[in-house]
Formats: sequence, C-alpha cells, structure tokens
Amino acid sequence: MIHEYRLARRVQFYETDAAGIVHFSWFFRYMEEAEHALWRSAGLSIHASGRDIGFPRVSTSFDFHRPLRFEQEFVVWLRIAAMTKKTIRYACTLTSGDLRIATGALTVACVKRQPDETLVAIEIPPEIAARFQVAPDVNA
Amino acid sequence: MIHEYRLARRVQFYETDAAGIVHFSWFFRYMEEAEHALWRSAGLSIHASGRDIGFPRVSTSFDFHRPLRFEQEFVVWLRIAAMTKKTIRYACTLTSGDLRIATGALTVACVKRQPDETLVAIEIPPEIAARFQVAPDVNA
Amino acid sequence: MIHEYRLARRVQFYETDAAGIVHFSWFFRYMEEAEHALWRSAGLSIHASGRDIGFPRVSTSFDFHRPLRFEQEFVVWLRIAAMTKKTIRYACTLTSGDLRIATGALTVACVKRQPDETLVAIEIPPEIAARFQVAPDVNA
Amino acid sequence: MIHEYRLARRVQFYETDAAGIVHFSWFFRYMEEAEHALWRSAGLSIHASGRDIGFPRVSTSFDFHRPLRFEQEFVVWLRIAAMTKKTIRYACTLTSGDLRIATGALTVACVKRQPDETLVAIEIPPEIAARFQVAPDVNA
Repeated sequence: MIHEYRLARRVQFYETDAAGIVHFSWFFRYMEEAEHALWRSAGLSIHASGRDIGFPRVSTSFDFHRPLRFEQEFVVWLRIAAMTKKTIRYACTLTSGDLRIATGALTVACVKRQPDETLVAIEIPPEIAARFQVAPDVNA
Repeated sequence: MIHEYRLARRVQFYETDAAGIVHFSWFFRYMEEAEHALWRSAGLSIHASGRDIGFPRVSTSFDFHRPLRFEQEFVVWLRIAAMTKKTIRYACTLTSGDLRIATGALTVACVKRQPDETLVAIEIPPEIAARFQVAPDVNA
Repeated sequence: MIHEYRLARRVQFYETDAAGIVHFSWFFRYMEEAEHALWRSAGLSIHASGRDIGFPRVSTSFDFHRPLRFEQEFVVWLRIAAMTKKTIRYACTLTSGDLRIATGALTVACVKRQPDETLVAIEIPPEIAARFQVAPDVNA
Repeated sequence: MIHEYRLARRVQFYETDAAGIVHFSWFFRYMEEAEHALWRSAGLSIHASGRDIGFPRVSTSFDFHRPLRFEQEFVVWLRIAAMTKKTIRYACTLTSGDLRIATGALTVACVKRQPDETLVAIEIPPEIAARFQVAPDVNA
C-alpha cells in the first residue's frame, strides 16, 4: 500500500514568466504530476482508457515561500493526508536542496460519467482504494 | 477607486484535457487574467517594463463546483477582499449563466527586486494603493 | 461561405517567458483560437460533443519576425489557403499595429474515430465543407 | 563537441486535450526541452542569468504522424542540422517504441538585448559555438 511519492523535477523554460520565475499555475501541475506518478507506483492509472470513472479535483491550494527559476532542480513530495469513501486528500511540499519552496493541498473525488456527460460522485472502487493508505505524521 | 472586475471569457480548446473538461490549473490563469484586467481598468499595469517592483503570488486556492467544457462561455468576477500595507487579497467567483462553476482566492504581496535577484517585501507604492479599495460585502 | 477571420487579442502574463516575451509555443495556440472562431463564425464547432469525427493537425509552422510582450495588443488574421476533399490548409499573419509579428501555416485533416480509438482519414462532411471557401489572393 | 540529444519523456495529463491526445502545441515544447538538455550536456545554459544575449526562435515546424496519449512514453531525438555564424538549425524526431510520432525543425538566432529592450542579431560567441557541431547524416 502506497502513501507517498517523491518526484524529482527541473524547471523548464516554458514554465517561467516575464518576472523571471515559474508562473504560479505550474505548481498545481507539478503536484498533479506527482499524484499520477504515485498512482503509477501503485500499479494504477488515474485516467485509464475505456473506464467511465474519473477523479476530478474538488479543491486545491498553494502557499508560495520562494520562487523557482529556469533549470532549477526541485522535489515534489506528495503524501496522502486523508481518505474517505469517495475522496482522497493529498498534502504536498516542494523543496529545492534545503529550501522550502511551496506547500500545497489537493482533494479529488471519484465520479462516474453518466450517458448525458454529467458526473455523479461514487465510492472509490475497492481495487483502487486497497492500494492506498494515509501517510503517517502527515501534519508533522 | 476600483474594487471589482468582471471578465467574460470562452473556453479555448487547449485549456481542455483528456477528461473532456477544463484542466484545473487553468482556473488560476483565469483568475489572474481578471486581476490584470482590474489593474488596467485602474489605469495600471501589474508588470510595467523598467520597474523594479512586482506582485508575486503568496497563496491561492480554488473550490471546483462544476466542470467547464470547450467553447463554454463564463464570467470571472474578481473582487478586492482585503488590503494591507504590503498585500492585496482577492476573492473570485466563476459562473456560467446561472451556474456556479468555481470559487477562488488569491493573495499577492508587493516586492522589490534586489540587485542579486532576491525579492524583498515592501509597502505598496501610494500611487498604486490609492487606485484600489476593498469591495463592499465581499463575504456575502 | 467563410474564408477568413480576424481575432483581436492581448498578451496574457502566463504566455510570457523569462526572456520577457511571448513563448513561441503560444503562437500555435493563437492560430488555433482564430481557427475555432472562424468555425464559429460559420455556425460550426470544430469539436462538437457526441460527434465521432475530428480535425487533428497534420502539419504546422511559424516564422517569427518580432517578439510580443505582456499586455501588447495584436491581431491574428487567419485565411483558408487551400481545401481538398479531406484537408483544410490555413495561412496566418500576426500583426500589432503596423508591425508584422509572425507568419504561420496549419493543415488539418478530417478523421473518424474508430471503436479501437485509432483515427482514419475521411472526407470532410458536405455540411461542413459547404460553409468554407478558399480566400482570394491568399498568397499575396 | 555535441551534435545530438535523446530525451525520454512521458505524456502528462495537462498536455492532453478534449480529443484525448496531446495538444499539438506541446510538441514544440518537447522539442525545446530536448534543445535545453542538449545545451546542458554541452555544459551550457541557453538562458544564463545576468547574460544579455539570448537565442529567440526564428522559425519552426512540425509534421504529425500519429497521436500521443496520456502516460505514453516517447523519445525526442534532437540533432544539429546546420550552423551559421548567427544561427543554429535543429532537426527533431519523436518516436514511441517503433512508432514514428512526429518530425520537427527549429531555427534559433543569437541576439543581444539593447538597453531599449530591442533585440539585435549578433554572432554566436565562440565559447558557445565551439561546443556544438552539425550531426552526421542529419538528412538521412
């Protein structure tokens, strides 16, 4: 059972903006990259083709402590902070060497796509839920 | 003195993802588009060339209520929720027709770029602060 | 019958990079925005929900003459340069005031999605082809 | 002296669009990622802080042979196809396993930023030009 993932990453040029630093919208993509890598490390894909369930984002946030710059290396540390029957909440910390860069959170819900394209919340299928557990000391 | 802005927008194809809906990272860009339009409506640019101050993002969040799809029209309603000597906090509501799509928040701080490229928090220059005021009933 | 579209646009902050100018990948998105607006002006959506045909990109190019900067206003002028039974080729010119910014080209093909998700080239449906015509003097 | 780079990559979710495949604008970013990795493998950064020269894109193109999908693994093979005193031209091939995905080209020019922010073409500094050479059989 998986409860965390550490993704090593380097800033790409197209992620920077005219202020010379990574545009803040990218931190949410970095966090999602780590989420999908965590799922792969559990033997799963969060968006398997032909499956009618999905995991849309319910809420998310980031606090930014220091900027990231072009070609800077950093680590995205994602942990499962909470699980309910229908949702997963992640906690995320970005660091670069010893520097704390940013702190994020993300909650996703399991939904089933209806024939009319609307999304209805359902319980996370047991074969998925069984692969994950809450990380110890996630609020430490 | 300006306290709000309403930006009308349509979903572009490159903003959608393989789930058929707008990728959640785009909501932060929509909110920032409205912020910069609010500054322009106050006669200002948030990133004027040749100026050594900037307004990096300190924290931000979004709650997602309903998905947006390709070519859907929506409105980003941005209000100034609070101002301190060094920061501005915005509240944001996305709607599409009568539907509530998402609710966001964004706090930015005024900084001065040092010769070594580090950023130091400073007070918002009075000629900028004088153009803005907190929106009434922003928590209504 | 439609043969051209002019899209007025302003540079958004997240479209700039650390060199202080619009990242070149955005010019392809600007061109596509104009394409989809051209289709809407013909009463069509290029990606209608529930339809099993699509228009993937076959080839594209851009020549860059001058940079674009944050908040700069520009116009994307898209013209239909050629049509075959299965493809449409567009020519694109970006200008800002009197300045020539960039020149692009884009060819798209009509495809049908097979049950196994592969794409097979088909003829453009007549109700779509009838809405478009080649622009006069497109090579002028 | 460096003449090529092979970048291994996986499709991220935010790179896909509502057609279920990678949006075509991303191929240009993939090609640029490989370019910057090629420069790093030569001991260089294409955008070193404090330096007043840059390498803006002059022209670029892609032919798309097959789509890429979420989590698909692929390789970006970038080669130096030509060098002049002021420009570098790259040739690029994307493959996924045995499949040819796309073929691209990119020409960049060396420029010096003037005090008024305009860009003037200059010769590539010898300490940079000396690290690169044209790849053999690049048109094979």
